[in-house]
Amino acid sequence: MDGMDSETTGADSLVRTLVKGGVGVTFANPGTSEMHYVAALDRVQGMRCVLGLFEGVCSGAADGYYRMTRKPAATLLHLGPGLANAAANLHNAKKAGSGIVNVVGEHATHHIKYDTPLTADIEGIARPFSHWVKTTATSQTVAADGALAIQAARGAPGQIATLILPADTAWGPGGAVAETPATPAPATVAKDAVVAAAKALAGGNSAMLFLGGESLTARSLDLAGRIAAKTGCRVQAAGGTAKLARGAGRVQVLRLHFVIETAQQQLQGVKQIVLAGAKEPAAFFAYPGKPSILTPEGCTVSKLCGWEDDCEAALQALADELGATSLAPIGVAQAKRPDKPTGKFSLDGLGQALGAVLPEGAIVVDESVTTGRGFFPFSAGAPPHDWLNNMGGSIGFGGPVSVGAGVACPDRKVVCMIGDGSAMYTIQSLWTMGRENLDICVLIFANRSYQILYSQLSGVGAPNPGPRAIDMLTLDRPTLDFVKLAKGMGVEAAAVTDLDQLNKQLQYAMSTKGPYLIEVVM
Amino acid sequence: MDGMDSETTGADSLVRTLVKGGVGVTFANPGTSEMHYVAALDRVQGMRCVLGLFEGVCSGAADGYYRMTRKPAATLLHLGPGLANAAANLHNAKKAGSGIVNVVGEHATHHIKYDTPLTADIEGIARPFSHWVKTTATSQTVAADGALAIQAARGAPGQIATLILPADTAWGPGGAVAETPATPAPATVAKDAVVAAAKALAGGNSAMLFLGGESLTARSLDLAGRIAAKTGCRVQAAGGTAKLARGAGRVQVLRLHFVIETAQQQLQGVKQIVLAGAKEPAAFFAYPGKPSILTPEGCTVSKLCGWEDDCEAALQALADELGATSLAPIGVAQAKRPDKPTGKFSLDGLGQALGAVLPEGAIVVDESVTTGRGFFPFSAGAPPHDWLNNMGGSIGFGGPVSVGAGVACPDRKVVCMIGDGSAMYTIQSLWTMGRENLDICVLIFANRSYQILYSQLSGVGAPNPGPRAIDMLTLDRPTLDFVKLAKGMGVEAAAVTDLDQLNKQLQYAMSTKGPYLIEVVM
Repeated sequence: MDGMDSETTGADSLVRTLVKGGVGVTFANPGTSEMHYVAALDRVQGMRCVLGLFEGVCSGAADGYYRMTRKPAATLLHLGPGLANAAANLHNAKKAGSGIVNVVGEHATHHIKYDTPLTADIEGIARPFSHWVKTTATSQTVAADGALAIQAARGAPGQIATLILPADTAWGPGGAVAETPATPAPATVAKDAVVAAAKALAGGNSAMLFLGGESLTARSLDLAGRIAAKTGCRVQAAGGTAKLARGAGRVQVLRLHFVIETAQQQLQGVKQIVLAGAKEPAAFFAYPGKPSILTPEGCTVSKLCGWEDDCEAALQALADELGATSLAPIGVAQAKRPDKPTGKFSLDGLGQALGAVLPEGAIVVDESVTTGRGFFPFSAGAPPHDWLNNMGGSIGFGGPVSVGAGVACPDRKVVCMIGDGSAMYTIQSLWTMGRENLDICVLIFANRSYQILYSQLSGVGAPNPGPRAIDMLTLDRPTLDFVKLAKGMGVEAAAVTDLDQLNKQLQYAMSTKGPYLIEVVM
Repeated sequence: MDGMDSETTGADSLVRTLVKGGVGVTFANPGTSEMHYVAALDRVQGMRCVLGLFEGVCSGAADGYYRMTRKPAATLLHLGPGLANAAANLHNAKKAGSGIVNVVGEHATHHIKYDTPLTADIEGIARPFSHWVKTTATSQTVAADGALAIQAARGAPGQIATLILPADTAWGPGGAVAETPATPAPATVAKDAVVAAAKALAGGNSAMLFLGGESLTARSLDLAGRIAAKTGCRVQAAGGTAKLARGAGRVQVLRLHFVIETAQQQLQGVKQIVLAGAKEPAAFFAYPGKPSILTPEGCTVSKLCGWEDDCEAALQALADELGATSLAPIGVAQAKRPDKPTGKFSLDGLGQALGAVLPEGAIVVDESVTTGRGFFPFSAGAPPHDWLNNMGGSIGFGGPVSVGAGVACPDRKVVCMIGDGSAMYTIQSLWTMGRENLDICVLIFANRSYQILYSQLSGVGAPNPGPRAIDMLTLDRPTLDFVKLAKGMGVEAAAVTDLDQLNKQLQYAMSTKGPYLIEVVM
């Protein structure tokens, strides 16, 4: 370091820029090329560092953190492969509109050309998963690049900004700490769109307000309920909801179902769809002979606002236009919990057990896949809570997003529901829950198969799987023991085999702080 | 399916093409968009399907399979995020010269434009990790594309070929099964290069034959030993060796050390380096004030053959040119095992314990990072075995590559040595070991830290880490319990806390078949 003041390295200028720009958490899995950056994290006050044992935990945690705070967190990743390991949950975050600042280490600029083992095309890896990608050129400019990354991440919707940091731009002399430029406010929706939407929804029950993104906040839903009170229109949420406000006192919505035929029933008879923060209803997957777009024949689709717009303001303008603002919203959930269920497991029973105990302010992270699809009615009247879904369809989302939600909201209980197959992609998230003592109850629904694929195999026209196909859908040989896995990572756990045991375990989990895993052996 | 004969789908034509082209194993983690392909795997004889719970297990397994068989295996991956999860071990495989055929599902061609949750730029994701990328256009042409993928994967060195399979090209009517075009044989090295190498090595002890790739087979090493007998040159292996033939009766080589100063000592006094299947010696990482290229000042570097050439033939030609072929090779390891060590753990003691029991034909997969760097001398005289290293530096390589080696060589014992930090990236590989009952002894060296990063932090000029930095290097809060983790995935396991216990456990593991994990609590 030639006697240089280490507090003025490029890495220090970048960390200070991040802290100044409101990025106060780094979900990290560093390596050698990031060691100067780690040293700077050590020196600079104001950045919380949370270690993940796998990079997909870090990126998913940043997604969860953004969803709960609307503020980007940083990740710290080790060159191309570290970024690649983070990529699946970056994909999910990108589809959820979550802003993240990825800091990705790279070899020193003079070292890259020797194509040593970890050399890779980091920008190429970043591009499919990022809105903004830059390799910083010098230690003097890295702070300014960091500020641009924060600005990008703060966009509406949030963006994935990937800043690639050659080691010499971290260890060389830093420039001034940079001020993050303001992010433009989300666009206000034009009056024309509001008037058109008001007209479209006048169709009453044959019209549908189709909600996504920021149209699923408590306030947006309240406005939607008033609009429905005025017009008689249906109110429907998109299939994926990054964060949905639910519970007693809030306007209830159902999500568009994953199964095409069920979704088509939900949309049956609709002649006008008005999109607010959502895209036109589409099937998750394609199937032979089935449609991709689920809008009924002859139905007109118009857009009130996109997910990039100020959806709450657009819905307010629409309610005003309709003279609905002062009406009482319809569809408001009354406070009411189901009785605790008893006996053998059933899907409804699981939903009831959850609805019976879900505490006020809970954050439900839902990667329950086939098991949890019908849970909504049983928790509609539970105390107000948020419900987070996987927006990108890449499984291995639940544990990591729960980590981020837990870091973001230490005073709220996180309930993380995962299928056994999904849980294994990022099972390392349990260790970070233990390390940070996050208040997360993990529910593993262990049906010991990729249950969804059984129906899918039949859905694609291959209804009678033989032994080689079945072998790729089953997880029961050997049996996964999630209690052992959790304890192996320092998280207390128990298995339950009926609803009575589940009630007891849930009650324990809800009444204590810290991570706890319940394996529901179905 | 409109009454179509399902045995003539595009998927069937592709699976048959793979089997016909010698691709007999698929390491799979499929999803909905791959269900027709799964159905075809079910119908077509001759393809072994091995399920992984995480895609990085599949790609690493394909790497290990190729290293042991020189034949590409296939992976089956679920759209862009599935490919992304496989990418880090594809990076390692690419750097190792391992040929792999990735079959990546994609939405049906008509569905992609709706940008549903799993839609991503799959070609963009594939490109940084692949030599060959193609999205197949129709179900009629998918078989021919598959044959081209096999041809690419079979190149010298092996290539990563990624075939993207829109669902309708799998479910639509298939064309004819395709014949895989021949792959050109590796180039024969020109006479000029052989003559020049012979001249360069005449310098005796100031000359070095620097070996990588196919120059590390038993036959190549034998030739190198004869060349050294004739010329007095040094023989040195590159830092990374995809597969190194070792043990009694084989010519011993040491790898170039990871630590720059130690590597520089290995190269001290060398005036001529002749590369055979290796690149010029370079540092793994860059450090402030240290060189990237490790060739001593004034040393001339010339190339006998690259990793794309027929290295064994080149070394034979060189030996012939020098009149060395009939000489006895020098540096041949004599059959000799160390005594079983006793007492507390030491790095040398661990090496001795391994050398004392390593069975004939063992396949050592080495991701022991800091722990195992000095193990070579203790196993040099063990019965003949192969030693596989991480060529791409992306950790999480050991378990998956062991899976592939175990599938490839069911009659050989695989010894998988992993650091605790490394093991956690792809810990799911244990489950596949259990499922397939692979004959793998997993040794976890649990120093409960990213030990390598301590030295690296100091090496980059940050010698006194504070609490936030230390927090990102330690794995002891909570403690990882690998015995519980293994049992949670159906693999028997035990922890050992001294060398005597380790000896006993190793003896048990070597004398029984099937997966077994030993946690070495250091």
